[in-house]
Amino acid sequence: MHEIRRDPILGRWVIIATDRSNRPSDFAINREQPVGGVCPFCYGSESHTPPEVFAIRGATRADAPGWQVRVVPNKYPALRIEGDMGRRAVGIYDMMNAIGAHEVVIESPEHDAQMADMSAEQITRILDAYLQRMIDLTNDARFRYILIFKNQGADAGATLEHAHTQIIATPVVPKRVAEELEGAQRHFAQRERCVFCDIIQQELEARTRVVEENEAFVALEPFAARFPYETWILPRRHVARFERLQREDLRRLGNILRDTLRRIDTALEHPPFNYVLHTAPNQNGEADAYYHWHLEIMPKLTKIAGFEWGSGFYINPTSPEAAAEHLRSMEWR
Amino acid sequence: MHEIRRDPILGRWVIIATDRSNRPSDFAINREQPVGGVCPFCYGSESHTPPEVFAIRGATRADAPGWQVRVVPNKYPALRIEGDMGRRAVGIYDMMNAIGAHEVVIESPEHDAQMADMSAEQITRILDAYLQRMIDLTNDARFRYILIFKNQGADAGATLEHAHTQIIATPVVPKRVAEELEGAQRHFAQRERCVFCDIIQQELEARTRVVEENEAFVALEPFAARFPYETWILPRRHVARFERLQREDLRRLGNILRDTLRRIDTALEHPPFNYVLHTAPNQNGEADAYYHWHLEIMPKLTKIAGFEWGSGFYINPTSPEAAAEHLRSMEWR
Repeated sequence: MHEIRRDPILGRWVIIATDRSNRPSDFAINREQPVGGVCPFCYGSESHTPPEVFAIRGATRADAPGWQVRVVPNKYPALRIEGDMGRRAVGIYDMMNAIGAHEVVIESPEHDAQMADMSAEQITRILDAYLQRMIDLTNDARFRYILIFKNQGADAGATLEHAHTQIIATPVVPKRVAEELEGAQRHFAQRERCVFCDIIQQELEARTRVVEENEAFVALEPFAARFPYETWILPRRHVARFERLQREDLRRLGNILRDTLRRIDTALEHPPFNYVLHTAPNQNGEADAYYHWHLEIMPKLTKIAGFEWGSGFYINPTSPEAAAEHLRSMEWR
Repeated sequence: MHEIRRDPILGRWVIIATDRSNRPSDFAINREQPVGGVCPFCYGSESHTPPEVFAIRGATRADAPGWQVRVVPNKYPALRIEGDMGRRAVGIYDMMNAIGAHEVVIESPEHDAQMADMSAEQITRILDAYLQRMIDLTNDARFRYILIFKNQGADAGATLEHAHTQIIATPVVPKRVAEELEGAQRHFAQRERCVFCDIIQQELEARTRVVEENEAFVALEPFAARFPYETWILPRRHVARFERLQREDLRRLGNILRDTLRRIDTALEHPPFNYVLHTAPNQNGEADAYYHWHLEIMPKLTKIAGFEWGSGFYINPTSPEAAAEHLRSMEWR
C-alpha cells in the first residue's frame, strides 16, 4: 500500500510509492508499463489492461475491439480503490493510506494518432469520456478531487507512446487547486465577481493575448504565463465545474481544443506538452460562486524545472503577447 | 526592459523576457551564453564576462587569472540593476519593471570540475562567496529576496558546462518562499516553536531519514519528499537567515554539503540536480522567530514535471526512508 504524506510546512500532499525499487535505472516512473513489445492500448490487446470502466464503442462487447475511446483502471495505480483512509499522525507528521482511483483514457485505437491530428469529433469523444468518468467518480464520497491530465511526449512525462490521458481521484485537494480556490475566493470577497470572468472580459477587450474563440469558449495566453506558449481554454459563461458541461458545449470544447492544439503543434513543431483540467473540488458548494473551470495547456519547451520547483519563481523567455500573435498567425487548415 | 508580472489568481510572480525571440529553436534559455566555443568562465577568459563583483583570489589583479571562486554579473540578466520599480496596474493585472540583480558564481577555474568532486575547502570557498554576495545584496532596499540556486547538468537546466551558481535578487518575495513563511508562522502561532526545529528533533530521534550529520548541520530526506532522493541540509541551531552564518560553521557546511553531494553522486551515478538556498526575506524581522534557513537539493531523476507543475500534486516512486538508507550505505571515501 502506498502512502499519502503531508508536508508539515507547506501542507502539500505527496504520494509515496513505498513498494517500488529505489535503483536509479527505475526512475522512468512506470505509471503504465508496456507488456514486452505489445502495446496494451491497441486494438486486440484489450486483455492486457484491467476490464474497461467506460468506452465509446459500436455494438461490440466490452473489452474487445470496436471502441473509439476506452477507459480502464491503471494497471500500476498510484492510488488504490479498496481500503479505508487510515488517516493518522506520526509525531508532527500527517499521513493516510493511498486510497483513490487511477484510470487511463485511451484516446484512440490507432497507435500513432496524436491528439493534435485527430478530428474535432474524436476529441469531443475523448472529452465526453472525461465528463462521464468525472460524473461517476464524484459520486464516491471518499474523493475530494478528480484530476484529469495528459502528458504527451517522453519529455512531458509520457511513458507509453499510445495517446492517453490519466484520471486520478484523490482523497485530498491538491495544493495548486487549493491555492487557486483561495485566490478566487479572495477576489470574490472583495468584488463579488469571479476573477476568471474578469480576466475573460479584459482579455476579450484587449485581444492581444487571445488565440482562438467560439460562442462558448476562449483560448488565451495568460498575462503572467509561466511557460512559453502556456495556453488556457476557459468557458465564457461562469461555471465552476467541468461536470456541469452541457451537451452542446461539449462539441464546442472539442472544436476549440482541436484548433488550439493544431496551432501549437504547427507553431512549435510537435512539442511535448501537458494539460491539466482545473475544476472545483467535490463537496465544496461555495466554490460554485467564485471558481471557474478551465484547461491549462503547457508546452514543454524549456528545461528550467528544478529552480522553478524550488522557488515558485518563473522566468518566461517568450511574452504571452508574442506567443498569441505567433499562434494566431498559423495557417494549418 | 523585461517585466515582472503577477498572476491575478495565485499571486505568483513571473519574469517575462519581452525582448527575446519566440522561435522554438531559442528555447534552451540562455541565461548565460557561450561565446563561440570559448568558455567565458575559464582562466584567461575573464574579459568575456562583465567585471567581477567578488572573487577569492591570491595577490592577483581583478578580472585576471589567479582566482579560486569568481562572481560576475550575468551578461544576459533576467533582472537589471538600474532603474526604478515602475509598479503599475493594467486593468486587473499588476506588474513592475524587472529590476534586480542577476549574478553568476563561477565555482572553479577548472572547466570540468563538478561540485561533488571538489574538496570541502573549495566548496567552503563557494559558500563563502554566497555569503559575501548575500550580505552585500541585502543592503539594497529595493530587493526583497536573494535567491541562490544551482542547476547542474543540462537536464537540470544548466546551459553552460562550467560549474556555476546563480544569484537573483528580486523586488518581490517568490511564492514558494512566501508559502513556507506562512506555514512556519502558522506552526509557530499554535505552538511557539519553529517547525524546522521540530522536524530536526523528530528526525534525529527516528534516524530513518537522516543521511549525514555533524556538530552544526543535519542532512536528511524530508518526510513528504516530492522527488526521489530530495535532500535537505539544515542548521541544527535555530537561525532564520543564511547571512548570519558564523565563520566556524561555514566550514562545517562545506563539509556536510561535500559529503552529501558525494553520496548522491555515487548512489545515483552523477545525476543532474538543482539546489536552492531557502532563507528569510530581507526586511522581515518577524521571520527571525519562526523561519529556519536550509538548502534543498533535488536530483533530477524523473520527468513528471508538467503534471506536477499543473496540480501541485506529486508522486514520488522512492520512499525517503529507502533513499536515506541507500545514501547512508555509500562507500565513497
